[in-house]
Amino acid sequence: MKEKNSVGIVKSSLFYSSNHLDLESGIRLDSYELMYETYGSLNKKKNNAILVCHALSGNHHVAGRYSKEDKYPGWWDNLVGPGKPLDTNKFFVIGVNNLGGSDGSSGPKSINPKTKKIWGSSFPIITVQDWVTSQNELITYLGINKLAGVLGGSLGGMQALQWSIQYPEKLANSIVIAAAPNLTAQNIAFNEVARQSILTDPDFNNGNFYTTKKLPKRGLRIARMLGHITYLSNDVMGSKFGRKKINKNKNHQYSFNTEFEIESYLNYQGDKFANEFDANTYIRMTKALDYYDPAKSNVKNLSKVLKKAKANFLVISFSSDWRFSSERSKEIVKGLLDNNIKVSYAELSAVSGHDAFLMEDEHYHGIIKSYFQKVHKQL
Amino acid sequence: MKEKNSVGIVKSSLFYSSNHLDLESGIRLDSYELMYETYGSLNKKKNNAILVCHALSGNHHVAGRYSKEDKYPGWWDNLVGPGKPLDTNKFFVIGVNNLGGSDGSSGPKSINPKTKKIWGSSFPIITVQDWVTSQNELITYLGINKLAGVLGGSLGGMQALQWSIQYPEKLANSIVIAAAPNLTAQNIAFNEVARQSILTDPDFNNGNFYTTKKLPKRGLRIARMLGHITYLSNDVMGSKFGRKKINKNKNHQYSFNTEFEIESYLNYQGDKFANEFDANTYIRMTKALDYYDPAKSNVKNLSKVLKKAKANFLVISFSSDWRFSSERSKEIVKGLLDNNIKVSYAELSAVSGHDAFLMEDEHYHGIIKSYFQKVHKQL
Repeated sequence: MKEKNSVGIVKSSLFYSSNHLDLESGIRLDSYELMYETYGSLNKKKNNAILVCHALSGNHHVAGRYSKEDKYPGWWDNLVGPGKPLDTNKFFVIGVNNLGGSDGSSGPKSINPKTKKIWGSSFPIITVQDWVTSQNELITYLGINKLAGVLGGSLGGMQALQWSIQYPEKLANSIVIAAAPNLTAQNIAFNEVARQSILTDPDFNNGNFYTTKKLPKRGLRIARMLGHITYLSNDVMGSKFGRKKINKNKNHQYSFNTEFEIESYLNYQGDKFANEFDANTYIRMTKALDYYDPAKSNVKNLSKVLKKAKANFLVISFSSDWRFSSERSKEIVKGLLDNNIKVSYAELSAVSGHDAFLMEDEHYHGIIKSYFQKVHKQL
Repeated sequence: MKEKNSVGIVKSSLFYSSNHLDLESGIRLDSYELMYETYGSLNKKKNNAILVCHALSGNHHVAGRYSKEDKYPGWWDNLVGPGKPLDTNKFFVIGVNNLGGSDGSSGPKSINPKTKKIWGSSFPIITVQDWVTSQNELITYLGINKLAGVLGGSLGGMQALQWSIQYPEKLANSIVIAAAPNLTAQNIAFNEVARQSILTDPDFNNGNFYTTKKLPKRGLRIARMLGHITYLSNDVMGSKFGRKKINKNKNHQYSFNTEFEIESYLNYQGDKFANEFDANTYIRMTKALDYYDPAKSNVKNLSKVLKKAKANFLVISFSSDWRFSSERSKEIVKGLLDNNIKVSYAELSAVSGHDAFLMEDEHYHGIIKSYFQKVHKQL
């Protein structure tokens, strides 16, 4: 049976850049690879391309499935497809695994071409700016001079923002969802606890665990459990899990085994992630988040920085998101308005918290759909 | 130099109960010990005693110092002393290390009298109800028939609440600060991540780490770092630490070493705690928190449960406390009002978050002082 509005069966491609990349850290990558996927077709004018940037644990597989048997579609499949809010009948959509990732792009798990050995801990720390630089290489390779838009949520939204500052001439629209112009102390604090749980896991072995047979699953598991607390609102946790127990008929079990449903949920999410994700990538992604700060921690400065931007903006935040609250999105909007940049802003009343950006919601998706319809008309 | 308004040099005492204690878990302790301290004098009528209950990481050492050289006073020294809000010239104040604690009371670190071996993981899980039962044994031993008050913040506030339900005839005043009638799913979630970081630390060794030379410091450290995030408000973290770096003149360091001040703070707190606290006690304290739920997860039921209470109440919450928000304190107040129980409630606008209950603040301490003055007049 054909899935409705799906991009269908998809394949990933590998982009090899023989151009070197000078990273913000001062380290030079002589060459690098980016794993990517595209959906829809690039039009003759080559002006209908939308880059979709991923967040902490995402990758290039935005939509579709790899086979008929594939259990799960891409991570933003509810948004991207023929007739969907980001309509692949109209747009050429690009998903890319960020540099430092672990799904095919150059990263800690891949081979260092110089040494012919796994990078491991020696893979440099990458920043949002570095990602945007490398993404620009990819779109240039794909023959695109100017993107119709960059779209992202959370850390992906930071990339969409950075695109508008770093390559103002190459971007027509920036869609920044559930993001912030930098992290707060509390945001950094959560990232640091997650990192410390990985760094102090004995099996982490200073990041060189690929040759040993032990993966730092304990640390990654704790990091992910903690992450999930911050992705959900207090309210939605209450209504979904509350104080419910996995065994309803029982009294307290008086042990440290899983007992409440919320515990069961977190342990499941932690175990799953620890078996799938790369610990070296995880700690690098959190560091990219911590470092991102185009206005150098000065809200007023954001207006100055955004003076360069030439794109139109759609900014969306969610009322129950306590990781990146609406106030943080409003800082971006304020910076744009100070420069008379065209911006649509929606603060949506969602119950789910930060995770709302990944969920299918009529109002939310309606706003994105109508924005992209407008973008398409202007091509 | 004599410290102003201090209870001065103090000594702890040990109470040995030869009465057995039937725990909520169904397990019987044949006998047990409680470490405690007292400040001030019990009056002739023996009706001026105030029990101070501690929270997650506290103990019986509420006020004063053990020697002139002692670097830090007891954990609530700013509140308890001659002329202080809880005035030891007027009241006989009792601090007790809860059962399952690690500062002298029977707990995982102590010797099981039956086996003559360290309890370790075999020490049972204790509940708030069990604590109150054992505290009642202690005050009976001290010759007190009825307490002038029980005072506590956070988990300590839950004990103050439980006293009013469990021994209504034995309590004149219950002072419940920064507490809740039970934990939310989010509260349990944070506790579970803390527990999992301890339980999965290889050095935890299923709780039997006293005979090995390795302590589960990694896990306890992560648990404490996480705890500290929830003790502070987002705002106070922002104003105290913001995005400041420990080395102001430097660019990003592009490594995983401590870099932001908030990271430094959390790592310091985590290290300190991991060297001092007992992991088996920590996981038991969090379980007592998770289990406490006198109304069995039914807000309406709280009124029924509180019907028994005969004490007057002072309930205090702090506006920026997101661990136990004011809404949770209001549930308690509502339950009391439904029963026409005398209650004073103050929602204080503090910036510090949950930690505010331990801090010296004129308004906050003024409220407690005047409440205790009234209590004293009614003796």
